[in-house]
Order: sequence, then C-alpha cells, then structure tokens
Amino acid sequence: MSAKIRLYVEHPLGDGQSVPLDRDQAHYLFGVMRLAVGGQVLLFNGRDGEWLADVEQAGKRAGVLACVQQTKPLQMPPDLWLLFAPIKKARTDFIVEKAAEMGAARIVPVQTEFTNSERIRQDRLQAHAVEAAEQCGGTYVPEVAELQKLDRLLDDWPDGRQLMFCDEAEVGAAKRLASNTPGQPWAILIGPEGGFSDRERARLSALHFAYVVSLGPRILRADTAAVAAMTIWQQALGDWE
Amino acid sequence: MSAKIRLYVEHPLGDGQSVPLDRDQAHYLFGVMRLAVGGQVLLFNGRDGEWLADVEQAGKRAGVLACVQQTKPLQMPPDLWLLFAPIKKARTDFIVEKAAEMGAARIVPVQTEFTNSERIRQDRLQAHAVEAAEQCGGTYVPEVAELQKLDRLLDDWPDGRQLMFCDEAEVGAAKRLASNTPGQPWAILIGPEGGFSDRERARLSALHFAYVVSLGPRILRADTAAVAAMTIWQQALGDWE
Repeated sequence: MSAKIRLYVEHPLGDGQSVPLDRDQAHYLFGVMRLAVGGQVLLFNGRDGEWLADVEQAGKRAGVLACVQQTKPLQMPPDLWLLFAPIKKARTDFIVEKAAEMGAARIVPVQTEFTNSERIRQDRLQAHAVEAAEQCGGTYVPEVAELQKLDRLLDDWPDGRQLMFCDEAEVGAAKRLASNTPGQPWAILIGPEGGFSDRERARLSALHFAYVVSLGPRILRADTAAVAAMTIWQQALGDWE
Repeated sequence: MSAKIRLYVEHPLGDGQSVPLDRDQAHYLFGVMRLAVGGQVLLFNGRDGEWLADVEQAGKRAGVLACVQQTKPLQMPPDLWLLFAPIKKARTDFIVEKAAEMGAARIVPVQTEFTNSERIRQDRLQAHAVEAAEQCGGTYVPEVAELQKLDRLLDDWPDGRQLMFCDEAEVGAAKRLASNTPGQPWAILIGPEGGFSDRERARLSALHFAYVVSLGPRILRADTAAVAAMTIWQQALGDWE
C-alpha cells in the first residue's frame, strides 16, 4: 500500500549497506521521480529480500543509497518455468510481464514449427521482467532465457520436471493436474498463435511427464492463455491460497 | 483451424440470406484483405450462430455476401458480468479484449473512489469487444456498458446475481466460490490500481451476495487480475471443462 518507488539493483543489500547507483538509476530517481537527499526508496536484488533505503547522495549521473531496514524477506516463486512461442513485439512483452507478475521462476521463449519469430531481444525482455517485478511487489526477478527450439528443449528435458501444455484440440487421455503434489519442478508450455503442428502435438502427448489442460471453448490469444494457464497451475500446485 | 476471415455483422443470418456490407466492411474485405467475388468469409451477429458466406458483389464502398451454411450454432457465454475500474487507455482496451475472449456476457466499467478515469469511449471499447469476438471464434459479442459509479450499481444490484471480488487485503470471513452451483447470474469486480477504499471494502465485504477471492501473494495489474479472476470463475462455475 506504500507509494514508495521500488527499484531493482544488482548490489548486495543488508543492514547499513551502501548502494551506489549507476547513471540510469540516478537519472530515474533524481531526474524523473524528483527524489532528493533524505528521500526513501525500496530496493530488492532477487536475493536479499526488500530493503528500505535512504538517499544519501543525489547527483545527475550518480548517487548513493543506504539500506535502513528489511521490509520483506526474499520470497521465491514456485519452481515454475513458462515456455511460450514469441509473437508480435507488444504481446511478447505482455507475456513476459504477466509471467513475472504471476510468479514464474524462469521464462523460456521457444521456437515451434508454427512460430514466426526467428529472434528475440533477450535484454529487452529481461528489462520487462525487472519492471514487472518492481511493479508487482515481488522480491525475485525471473530469468528470461535465450530463444531455443522446442524440440531441442524436449530432447534435453531435466529429470523430474513436469510439463503442462495447453491445447485447443481435445485430448482424450490427458493426465490430470490434481493428481500431483505441490513443491515439484514444473513448466507450462503455451502454444504459438497457429497452434502446434500434428507432429509436435503427438510428441507432447506421448511424453510421460506431460499434462494437457483445456482453456475453455473460445480460442485465447497467447498472452491471455499464459495468464489463464498460470492461474490454474498456481491454484492447484503453486503459492496461491 | 480455418484461416478464413471472421466478420461481425448486425444483419440477420440464415439459409440463403443476403448480407449487404457497409463502407467500412467493404473496404476491409475487398481493399485490405483483397477478397473478391467467389471468396468466402465467416459471419456472426451474436444471435444466429456462425455462417459461411460467399462474396457475391465486391465494390470499393459496398458489397453483398450470401449465407451458404451454418458452421457453428450460437454459443452464449455464461451469465457473467465483468466490472472493472478503467485505467490507462491501452490497459483498458486489453481488459475489454480479455473479457470477450474469456467469455464474459457483459462488460461494465465502474468508477470507484480511487478510479482516475472520469470518462470512457464506450463506442471504442465496444469495437474492441467485437474485434476480440471475431478473433477468438466466439459467436457472441459482450455488451460494453457506459461508465457508472460502483456505489450506484450496488444500490440497484439485481436480485439473484452473485458478486465475486478480488482484493489484496486478507479477508477472514470470505465466503467460498465452490459452495455455489453453476448456471446462476454472476459478476466479477476487479478493483482499481490504487485498491478499494476502506469504505468500499467494508461495503463489499458486508454484501450478502459477495464472495472474496485471493489472487496470490504478488500484486497483479488490473488486466492480469481480470484474466486470473475469470479463469478461477470459469473453472469453478462457468463453461470450462
């Protein structure tokens, strides 16, 4: 409920710790947000929880903050990966933002047979994840991985990680989410706008660690599907409720 | 799975029915999408299901389609209203789009104590709902209501309609969704970015037809919260599964 600015930094945070600011951070806090010496911000770095910090030096290109006290412990999201096929720029940005808000631990753009996108700007997407974490009060920032081929990812699939995928097509023998226990590693795969290919669908359905979930009778855009699928997973197996 | 264009029209649809196009529709089909006489489109009007239609006349400013056969019956969404406090333009557009995709029957922008927005462009939002219905394969377009005050809406609340609201604050005595039976009229209320006021929260909590639902430990943006809340409702009481 606080209107304080939340800022992600890479520097360690702790009692009395000084935190030097880089040029962009100083410009944002002192130029854009008009903070001055004596003002306060909330800091997090993905490891040490959230800290209240005083502004000790405020310049145009630099500045120093000093940690006052911890305001939140580190809260890790569940061990959930969100895999999605990148689409148009604005929608891809939205998916990364939503994944961070909804509590994904890792975001993995994948190339499927019907994916249009040949490349992504990993650094730009990572910056979106940071911004979403600043906004949503989280103390953790999910890592955005480089774009990789779905087939290769499945070839090297880590032992013990379950996979939930969302498919418009009816799948008769779908295994049920609810038969699982919380606390295990998972991934959610959102298909591309054009759907999975028949070959991909057959491969996914045959995986012993895969579960199919239906997202209702209407066709959802990929960003809507990402939020809906994470809601279902978080309610059944994650940190909601 | 068809790549055919889906178009919402107001005209009645039925066996052999002719459908005249207005200037915008003709420009879109024949100018932008390069359809010609003999081409086919899918039509729906929110009442008669989805129809395959042939292009019979194609001009720059007008045209005529003819219905060939029904391809889907009318599928009404559950009797679910989505109430939300309008925010920045792009996010408001997203909420309307998501509500249509997720199967809301009516979309109601509401003014709360902490809502910034004094007005909305109802016609523009309604056009977004139409576009989302065209995109998601639905045969129904939710009505977007005019902006109204939340207090007034609650004063005149229709008998028998339940209300689910989503709140960051812990609510001890929250009634549970699962105790309800499907098929009843409902509304979901998404709070404004600044949260509900204490007075609003007290009023909402005291309503005998209100249910509180938690959306997890992170703060969700309003558009994310709308999709998450509708997912929970659709799974528990709506037309999913």
